[in-house]
Amino acid sequence: MRIERAQMNPIISPIHVTPSSPEMQVVSAFNAAAVSWEGETLLMLRVAEVPRNVADDEVAVPIVAHVDGSAHVEVRRFKRNQPGLDTSDPRAVLFNGEIFLSSLSHLRLARSKDGYHFAIDTKPALFPTEPYEEYGIEDPRMTVLEGRVYINYTAVSRYGVAVALASTSDFVTYEKHGIILPPENKNVVIFPERIGGRIVMIHRPATTGLGGQQMWLAYSYDVLHWGQHTPLMGKRPGMWDSIRIGAGAVPMRTDYGWLEIYHGVNDEQGYCLGAVLLDLEDPSKILARSNLPFLIPEAEYERTGFFGNVVFTCGAVVTEVEDESVVRIYYGAADQYTCRADIDLEDIIDSLHTPAVLVRPPVNLNEVPYPTGAACPIGE
Amino acid sequence: MRIERAQMNPIISPIHVTPSSPEMQVVSAFNAAAVSWEGETLLMLRVAEVPRNVADDEVAVPIVAHVDGSAHVEVRRFKRNQPGLDTSDPRAVLFNGEIFLSSLSHLRLARSKDGYHFAIDTKPALFPTEPYEEYGIEDPRMTVLEGRVYINYTAVSRYGVAVALASTSDFVTYEKHGIILPPENKNVVIFPERIGGRIVMIHRPATTGLGGQQMWLAYSYDVLHWGQHTPLMGKRPGMWDSIRIGAGAVPMRTDYGWLEIYHGVNDEQGYCLGAVLLDLEDPSKILARSNLPFLIPEAEYERTGFFGNVVFTCGAVVTEVEDESVVRIYYGAADQYTCRADIDLEDIIDSLHTPAVLVRPPVNLNEVPYPTGAACPIGE
Repeated sequence: MRIERAQMNPIISPIHVTPSSPEMQVVSAFNAAAVSWEGETLLMLRVAEVPRNVADDEVAVPIVAHVDGSAHVEVRRFKRNQPGLDTSDPRAVLFNGEIFLSSLSHLRLARSKDGYHFAIDTKPALFPTEPYEEYGIEDPRMTVLEGRVYINYTAVSRYGVAVALASTSDFVTYEKHGIILPPENKNVVIFPERIGGRIVMIHRPATTGLGGQQMWLAYSYDVLHWGQHTPLMGKRPGMWDSIRIGAGAVPMRTDYGWLEIYHGVNDEQGYCLGAVLLDLEDPSKILARSNLPFLIPEAEYERTGFFGNVVFTCGAVVTEVEDESVVRIYYGAADQYTCRADIDLEDIIDSLHTPAVLVRPPVNLNEVPYPTGAACPIGE
Repeated sequence: MRIERAQMNPIISPIHVTPSSPEMQVVSAFNAAAVSWEGETLLMLRVAEVPRNVADDEVAVPIVAHVDGSAHVEVRRFKRNQPGLDTSDPRAVLFNGEIFLSSLSHLRLARSKDGYHFAIDTKPALFPTEPYEEYGIEDPRMTVLEGRVYINYTAVSRYGVAVALASTSDFVTYEKHGIILPPENKNVVIFPERIGGRIVMIHRPATTGLGGQQMWLAYSYDVLHWGQHTPLMGKRPGMWDSIRIGAGAVPMRTDYGWLEIYHGVNDEQGYCLGAVLLDLEDPSKILARSNLPFLIPEAEYERTGFFGNVVFTCGAVVTEVEDESVVRIYYGAADQYTCRADIDLEDIIDSLHTPAVLVRPPVNLNEVPYPTGAACPIGE
């Protein structure tokens, strides 16, 4: 299998992005949703910003606050030597057990004819304005469904990490639809067509105990209200997706099934990309699953950055090149850059082992050494 | 305010309940949903059972397993002195970081003419049969909505702690509708009538970081698919509901607003009951909230049992006595017994302070000392 990183990677760097205000500085432009739209490739970038003018002895966190009913960015400052302050994770600032994010993310549109060179809007497409978005909006996915573009994203606030939805029909005006999945949840992808009359999503709740992090399906008739939540697949001890998993690109219809490119994390390799193939008629049926990832953080821009050893996709676009279907994977590298890698669709399919190893936490308790086995799937 | 515990409390004890099979022993009959139905008071009890015939040097956990497509109870056994085994919490068995429940719960119907003396069915009404119920089904609430009785309950499995729904129109046959809220979530109550055309619930997600445990609203058109998730209220540092909160009884329509009896936990008093009053037209508006609980574990059967210092309600019934509305609160005591306490509706209303103290995590960050204040609501 050959995966071809774009030679001009990273195709978008923070330096390319105009800050949302003169007081802010762009530190990351990454984890972009991707869609083919009227002959162009459109990316919806996650743009992370930090405050300018922070003294050397200070730590500053940006928050969306509401004054007189209107939202604006407010900066909270801590002395770097303040007892109780923990900045060991570059993504967060912990203060006496409270959690803040070190940057504030919004969503920004970028357009391209060739899928490499993008014109990036100078203004945000979607900015955190709601109380449930006060720490930012992150990691969008875009699904074109029945003529409208649905943009789901992670909404972060004191209320938790939840899944919110917006939509547009023209990429000029956007409508926010509120929270569609309560905390703690992220990594949602909505299928691009109804299956059996219903809209389908994959989501990834996180729990404090039983369950841990697993990928689930949910179903809807109107894209706003979701039910029939069904466990889909869990992590696999000892494999590339042993520590974390979550859906990545919006599922792609192929002749073989729904192809879902997802991320997995293990201690050695960090955030990698692999795939799972789901039955076209019943996506709760797993047909095959990568036993090895096909994209691993290896390039310098993937290994070093805001948060290193990460390749993470929120969108891919399929194009036809000389009778071959090529998947252009847009992905975030090191939580800082936007990159592209191309891979033949057939190569991905060929790489999937059938049957998949430990496709899901087994339903039949007799199928695995349990509870004495080390591979017990609870909490995995 | 006078709250009157039934003199015959506990009105239902485990000894009153026939085991679901000869191999099992009932250890708790508690946390019952309650509803007035055709002139009777119906309780849907949570019945917790443990395996019989466990040797002194053994610990046994009951699990629902599937063999040849049918569910049956299977017992897993550990040697009590096995390294890695932790039985310090009577509700759970931890083994090398994996979580099992020490008992298996199902739901059982009980009927009464006077609300004190209950005839308890000898067979379960709802038994855990689904993969997402393998560790049991717990803490039901019943809502009569447009002629049908909806029973939501906590479904526990390796997939997490989720909210499932069943329904009945006759308490003879029941239909299961699957998971309506993904993990981690519990303490769901569905309002007994539509508000503005929509069905409304209160739910209580739990998160690993931001958010912690807060009560949320959600909305539905069909009771199966839920959306428009909206934060409702959080815990209050230093008060009776500082550590945990969750909805209890199904909301009751009063002249003053929707009366919701909920549980709060603090270190000193354990699980207590208080109330919150929500606007009739817009239940996201909090009108008043108990600054002190009105039911505290004080009786012997509340302080000592399977898990002591707990009063916990899943249902209450309003009756008219000499022109007074009396709320009969059915509640679980010490995670073992079912009890009843009566309180005048007007007394509850009078006890609610207006305005409520720290009704919810404030939206305006300027309203509270934040983030330097000790009472910062994030994670609360």
